[in-house]
Amino acid sequence: MSIGMKSERIRSEAFLAKVMSAEQAAKFINDGDVVATSGFTPSGYPKAVPLALAERAKNGEKVEITLITGASVGPELDGTLAEAGVIKRRFPYQTDGKMRNNINAGNIKYADMHLSHVPQYIEYGFFGDIDVAIIEAIAINPDGGIVPSTSVGISPQAIRNAKKVIIEINSSQPLALEGVHDIYITEKPPFRKPIPIEATADRIGTTYIPCDPDKIVAIVETDITDKVRPLGEIDEDSKKISKHIIKFFEGEVAAGRLPENLLPLQSGVGSVANAVMAGLVESKFTNLTCYTEVIQDCMFDLIDAGKVTMASGTSFTPSSEGQVRLYNNIDLYTKHCVLRPMEISNNPEVARRLGVLSMNTAIEIDMYGHVNSTNIMGSRMMNGIGGSGDFTRNAYISIFTTVSTAKNGDISSIVPMVSHVDHTEHDVQVVVTEQGLADLRGLSPRERARAIIENCAHPDYKAKLTDYLDRAEALPTKHESHLLNEALSWHAKFVETGSMK
Amino acid sequence: MSIGMKSERIRSEAFLAKVMSAEQAAKFINDGDVVATSGFTPSGYPKAVPLALAERAKNGEKVEITLITGASVGPELDGTLAEAGVIKRRFPYQTDGKMRNNINAGNIKYADMHLSHVPQYIEYGFFGDIDVAIIEAIAINPDGGIVPSTSVGISPQAIRNAKKVIIEINSSQPLALEGVHDIYITEKPPFRKPIPIEATADRIGTTYIPCDPDKIVAIVETDITDKVRPLGEIDEDSKKISKHIIKFFEGEVAAGRLPENLLPLQSGVGSVANAVMAGLVESKFTNLTCYTEVIQDCMFDLIDAGKVTMASGTSFTPSSEGQVRLYNNIDLYTKHCVLRPMEISNNPEVARRLGVLSMNTAIEIDMYGHVNSTNIMGSRMMNGIGGSGDFTRNAYISIFTTVSTAKNGDISSIVPMVSHVDHTEHDVQVVVTEQGLADLRGLSPRERARAIIENCAHPDYKAKLTDYLDRAEALPTKHESHLLNEALSWHAKFVETGSMK
Repeated sequence: MSIGMKSERIRSEAFLAKVMSAEQAAKFINDGDVVATSGFTPSGYPKAVPLALAERAKNGEKVEITLITGASVGPELDGTLAEAGVIKRRFPYQTDGKMRNNINAGNIKYADMHLSHVPQYIEYGFFGDIDVAIIEAIAINPDGGIVPSTSVGISPQAIRNAKKVIIEINSSQPLALEGVHDIYITEKPPFRKPIPIEATADRIGTTYIPCDPDKIVAIVETDITDKVRPLGEIDEDSKKISKHIIKFFEGEVAAGRLPENLLPLQSGVGSVANAVMAGLVESKFTNLTCYTEVIQDCMFDLIDAGKVTMASGTSFTPSSEGQVRLYNNIDLYTKHCVLRPMEISNNPEVARRLGVLSMNTAIEIDMYGHVNSTNIMGSRMMNGIGGSGDFTRNAYISIFTTVSTAKNGDISSIVPMVSHVDHTEHDVQVVVTEQGLADLRGLSPRERARAIIENCAHPDYKAKLTDYLDRAEALPTKHESHLLNEALSWHAKFVETGSMK
Repeated sequence: MSIGMKSERIRSEAFLAKVMSAEQAAKFINDGDVVATSGFTPSGYPKAVPLALAERAKNGEKVEITLITGASVGPELDGTLAEAGVIKRRFPYQTDGKMRNNINAGNIKYADMHLSHVPQYIEYGFFGDIDVAIIEAIAINPDGGIVPSTSVGISPQAIRNAKKVIIEINSSQPLALEGVHDIYITEKPPFRKPIPIEATADRIGTTYIPCDPDKIVAIVETDITDKVRPLGEIDEDSKKISKHIIKFFEGEVAAGRLPENLLPLQSGVGSVANAVMAGLVESKFTNLTCYTEVIQDCMFDLIDAGKVTMASGTSFTPSSEGQVRLYNNIDLYTKHCVLRPMEISNNPEVARRLGVLSMNTAIEIDMYGHVNSTNIMGSRMMNGIGGSGDFTRNAYISIFTTVSTAKNGDISSIVPMVSHVDHTEHDVQVVVTEQGLADLRGLSPRERARAIIENCAHPDYKAKLTDYLDRAEALPTKHESHLLNEALSWHAKFVETGSMK
């Protein structure tokens, strides 16, 4: 404890007067407040203060807030507060079961946003005033500089714009993380300058987030750990998807359309994404870089194998096994990684300049190449679009992956028309399932349809898809033909009967 | 004529040997070729050589090509070649009636692309080799530098990547255009640098497009004019839309969310867009800038009124009246305008940095905020997405406009679910019809639906939309509720009965 004297983590005696319990700190949050927090995936999010806030609600107090985070966060924040009825409005991404259920039950108003838009919304005032920022940190510098923990997310903008800042100093997060962060904040238009990143490894900022010390109203010490999840085993379908992608990359290199060491890889969150990247360990590719959101276990494998020289993200997102591995080899991994604000990790400017190869997962993909990433059967919110659009839209090549069926074959992930569109035909260049890969570049809609059905659909659904397409193409309008009365009938049938078959 | 000696337009005697007739030049184009041309809107596109090429086909020769342009082009290129059966594949945008009919009849394979993606596709080799570039110019410099005419479009990339270059020197285009262009070409990743534009007026390149003189196989002299169209009168609906937007901007300035002189305006092609901008002439706003694709008549009004200090685009797109006005006041307008390659005019990096206020027109918009810009009743291609996505996605505020009904009220432009998605709910912040304006920022899907129905739908369709929404919201899944069996029934009904009513 730091009571009475400054410490390794609280680096000025001036801050000691602000050290208090989570319960005391939570009192700075008022009913109706807009609260912006650190956290991206279950990494680096505040824990003690949200738990204390939930207690107030459980004890009968009316305290309802708008919660803005970087992306998903752990159960102490999203789960507990959703369950206690504290969160009334939520931006921009979530994965917590309790949060999701409350959104789909209509209890929480949720706006699913491109992650790169969120820091701007804060800066531009589109969320209104930010009343409180709650930021997990590993240390506070004497000038108020905040050293983040396992993620950066929206913390720079939350701190800059909040009226009050609460800091959780988390001693479960190793101080050795210090130095891995690279904090750069853009100005608002018309004063914004080019972001001077020209390569994945470029460092352009500071290792801490600047913070006006007078805005810090509370400092809470805690040791609650990031609630990371066990590593899922890589299944056969994911391995096949990975192999199709690596073969595709090899072909692009052979054709002279990609450099030998590819271009910076971007890969979404999740097990398929993890598997795709893991497949690169066995590949002939070397000297790779990654410009992405999340640094998952596969990245440690790639660093260990000497395949990846530098990975840039906005969070470490390890499994429980990966967390141990990160902490035990922290000097190695922080040397090859950089954590940036999500305004920079997900920035269209940087993604396009570097030419990222984007790889993201879809819930379903239609035969013309539109992608649904968010709403099951058109209406049930899963997680959100996250950063997939930020990268896809600005990628050198944009790739979407999905297993060709779900629910034991009762759902085809390739459908005539997706029930919700998150990425349009204009943005999707390559579609991959365990069945194969369809390269859509330069194809007309009807050619795309044939390629996707032929290469990516599950054999159980190929005839049915082809039949739909044949009949649609027989209509007078032959650009991107649809049977309007049937386009969503596969989904309607599933909702009614439990199967698209 | 320049036979025998260099001229004001052909600035080296070395090029005189390459001057030939359009018929001779057209012979450099072979069956199966990929042809990339200048032109953006009916401005600055090649005319004489395409007409000669069409003659070859009309005389029975098999000559089929892939045509890539900046955007739409005039009838000498799209119309004549489509009619003659010369174009088999077309990228990325078109507005010609004959071209459109051939696309929808299934005769021409058309891929509708984000305009900002096209220059990259050329550079990255995704279209395959570019066999021939045909470029309209006002002059050729002694070193081969090509001075474009009324548009720039993809000409820099077409010239850099084509095996053969054909130049049309068009004497109907005034030499006084020289100096208005600002040509900057990015390198491919991993060598790409920040684009150093920090304000609309910044000039970062040359006034000509560099070209290896050895690649120039033919120079054709012509005087065929750009086929611009008469100016449409501004109708009452467009005036109302314009007023709603200006009032919105005034509110944003008052709230401190926009500077007094706004931010760079972007406005799509067409009469509604023209009307919106024209409305600014009467507004109190001054010292405006425009960072957009097309410089239309309204911009001349704004320059004349001293409202706009600088307009950046990739083409002059005047009406026939505007063309006379441009040529008669060319020194004034070129002083306040800059024409850039469309890689730069439509660049996500620059659009986001400058913070453009994007205003684009929709065919239809659904209650959750998805936009259809391209396919009528889900299948019939109108023009294409053009640059609307480039700007929308990276805008400070993205606005979509549409008149609330079409076909004398038989089509509602506000529908339960759009029949084709070009811009997703994540990208659309403000919806405007003549009925009113819905500000969607920060709203959940169901709140967006109420706001759009209330403010934007035509009174004839409000009850029907509300009924759909009420019944959808009664389903167990309440995030973005849809009745899967009914979502597209409005379109199906229109196709069947001729009315959505």
